[in-house]
Amino acid sequence: MKGVAIVSGGMDSVTMAYFLKRNLHPEVNLRLVSFDYGQRHVKELQTAITCAERLEAEHDVINLQMLTKHLAQSGSVLVDQTQAVPHGHYAEESMKSTVVPNRNAIMLSIATGIAVADGAEFVAYGVHGGDHFIYPDCRPLFFEEFHRAMLYGNEGFAVSNFRLMAPFIHQTKADIVHIGESVGVPWVETWSCYEGGRFHCGKCGTCVERREAFSLAGVVDPTTYDK
Amino acid sequence: MKGVAIVSGGMDSVTMAYFLKRNLHPEVNLRLVSFDYGQRHVKELQTAITCAERLEAEHDVINLQMLTKHLAQSGSVLVDQTQAVPHGHYAEESMKSTVVPNRNAIMLSIATGIAVADGAEFVAYGVHGGDHFIYPDCRPLFFEEFHRAMLYGNEGFAVSNFRLMAPFIHQTKADIVHIGESVGVPWVETWSCYEGGRFHCGKCGTCVERREAFSLAGVVDPTTYDK
Repeated sequence: MKGVAIVSGGMDSVTMAYFLKRNLHPEVNLRLVSFDYGQRHVKELQTAITCAERLEAEHDVINLQMLTKHLAQSGSVLVDQTQAVPHGHYAEESMKSTVVPNRNAIMLSIATGIAVADGAEFVAYGVHGGDHFIYPDCRPLFFEEFHRAMLYGNEGFAVSNFRLMAPFIHQTKADIVHIGESVGVPWVETWSCYEGGRFHCGKCGTCVERREAFSLAGVVDPTTYDK
Repeated sequence: MKGVAIVSGGMDSVTMAYFLKRNLHPEVNLRLVSFDYGQRHVKELQTAITCAERLEAEHDVINLQMLTKHLAQSGSVLVDQTQAVPHGHYAEESMKSTVVPNRNAIMLSIATGIAVADGAEFVAYGVHGGDHFIYPDCRPLFFEEFHRAMLYGNEGFAVSNFRLMAPFIHQTKADIVHIGESVGVPWVETWSCYEGGRFHCGKCGTCVERREAFSLAGVVDPTTYDK
């Protein structure tokens, strides 16, 4: 059995890859796919590479840097490095500036093309319930429609039981910490911070969310934060 | 008003671009987007470039060659150049080897990301009724689901009237010839042939379809064919 996992290098997608390989489908021949779209925190790709090494999985980093200048027209702070990364909680209005237009559809489409061509049974991505506030392409509504589109669009060419999976889409990030603990995720080998500096900044939306998740899960956070 | 058109350089997508610019939305600031995914008939991109010049439209050729080796695992003759291009009519079983896994979703996702980031009102692609036989991602079923997914996935970030358009999805290729005539498409500046040689081969699926379309439309076919 073959499967494709989209792994950014963050704690959600790394946990998903460990969970798929060590719990859900131990027999899977898992391929990891990551994307370099000119993100400010390109550092996350290093932890994606480490994840692939730990799981002995094939891994491709797809270079989409030719899209950066286009996507930056949205003013997204993740690809327009002239803008400052907002600090605070995901639920805040300011976090909208971290949205990259259509990012999940682009990544899922490419991963689906790779999976269908290779006869893989699934494509998995690591969105979770806490993403729904700000990222429209992390919502079940998007995922369900997109999933159906992929099934129609590859009918007769994908393997018969091909499917998209978003195993954490109804979980919280604290749930992900629990799952990660159960499958032995080395948290220091995951990267969240949008700033992409030497250490996690501890203040940007995804750092705030990371800290909160460990706290709510009652698990010691081994991350080194700047402050 | 801004819009994005996916233009391969074939007669369908070139006609669509002319139709959008010269008929449907004369006021549009149209951006053309083409894709280099390692297709055997990469020559088509030259006619896409010419189309952009004629319409004085901005144009980007997105390089997806890093996907070629992955997509070629499907055995698609369009990206695996060790395979022969089948001859005959689109309706024949052998034409399935010309399917590139998830190609339309990949192109539409990227074009949608570009459009949303730029505040464009639409993304258009040039599929038509005759494609439905073999290409699952040219069917209305795929398009409608995918369209909904794009609206959900960009809710709050796309302009309020953003939409995907497939203006020829219920037309025949002969209809496209009539439309192209009405908006002055220079047919010799379009490329169909999958072989990508000096002239159109006249025998591959898309050449057969091209010849048939002119014939059914009762329009003189100005194409130079090998035989």
